[in-house]
Amino acid sequence: MTSKNPDAKAPDASRRSERSRQAILDAALALVGEVGYNRLTVEAIAARAGVGKQTIYRWWPSKAAVLLDASLALSGKAADEGGWTGFPDTGDLAADLKAVMRATVDELSDETYAAPARALAAAGATDPGLGARFTEQLLEPQLALYEERLRSAREAGHISPGTDLRVAVEMLVGPLTYRWLLRTGPLTHAFADEVVDRVLAGIAAHADTA
Amino acid sequence: MTSKNPDAKAPDASRRSERSRQAILDAALALVGEVGYNRLTVEAIAARAGVGKQTIYRWWPSKAAVLLDASLALSGKAADEGGWTGFPDTGDLAADLKAVMRATVDELSDETYAAPARALAAAGATDPGLGARFTEQLLEPQLALYEERLRSAREAGHISPGTDLRVAVEMLVGPLTYRWLLRTGPLTHAFADEVVDRVLAGIAAHADTA
Repeated sequence: MTSKNPDAKAPDASRRSERSRQAILDAALALVGEVGYNRLTVEAIAARAGVGKQTIYRWWPSKAAVLLDASLALSGKAADEGGWTGFPDTGDLAADLKAVMRATVDELSDETYAAPARALAAAGATDPGLGARFTEQLLEPQLALYEERLRSAREAGHISPGTDLRVAVEMLVGPLTYRWLLRTGPLTHAFADEVVDRVLAGIAAHADTA
Repeated sequence: MTSKNPDAKAPDASRRSERSRQAILDAALALVGEVGYNRLTVEAIAARAGVGKQTIYRWWPSKAAVLLDASLALSGKAADEGGWTGFPDTGDLAADLKAVMRATVDELSDETYAAPARALAAAGATDPGLGARFTEQLLEPQLALYEERLRSAREAGHISPGTDLRVAVEMLVGPLTYRWLLRTGPLTHAFADEVVDRVLAGIAAHADTA
């Protein structure tokens, strides 16, 4: 058990804290990819990060909480590196949705990203407090971007004025997430495209009168 | 540690085994509803069932495996009691799908059924072996009933001949499961109805030419 005094807040200590924090997040992401969530332990994260177990428990209540912050840091970094900050809006709604959904398929097929996301979705399903943070901090910002794109399409008259945008967003991401988490079939670009085409046919400008 | 000889197979022992097995499954279902999956332990299941921990480990490798068999027994019992054995086919596809999806919403809002299902979906997401059994034994038989109903609708000309039935099924159950597992919004009959209406508009008989 290490026992550095957490209240000793000299500039050096603060820099050291930030280094430890980053090492812990990196270790958690690396380990969940290597051993899977079920075999991941706070002890192993601490050993990999070169800190004591108590350092982790001072900042996080559980391995799931460490992973959530690690995933938030990862998605923040991806955005900073010029990745996905907004939704494409080329005027072609189907093309824009397919581009984003295909990128999501690729991301979910890459264990670096997928292993912690899968672990968090699973842990959140049975831990309402963690689940609420996961959904609010990691999922909702992404859903909001979809919704914004659909809103502009609705304003442009490309989809039916009666479309419930939130339901439409979940009709796009729901089947993808379902197939990914429950492994009911191969997660492919073709699947993403088919979902986009069918959802758009269902909310097409003429759909309310169909 | 209890240590009855598992190889002593007199008729009495076999009846006792079956009683123990049923007590273990009942205890697992009751406890997961009471304490949640994360705090569920094999020890607690054994204590509630009045058996030794080793009796459970003789038959199941983990609490998740016990829960899977308990859920299979529960869904088998529901079917035996005149519950849901087939899909309604009144000729009105929308009405039939809404009836089933609304019943699913009710079921997922009842913790007796929902707690083990949620736990299994979560455990399966991070344990591919368990996930495969969960999907194959518990999910696929349900998906097959949806697919069968959609096939008869396609044959009757009520939906487009180009409909990929499997994708259509996942477009129905995916958003419902997504909202249930990730708690992205209230799981209501209105949500189920909206998903059915939009999916059907997307696969309507005229949709391929839309």
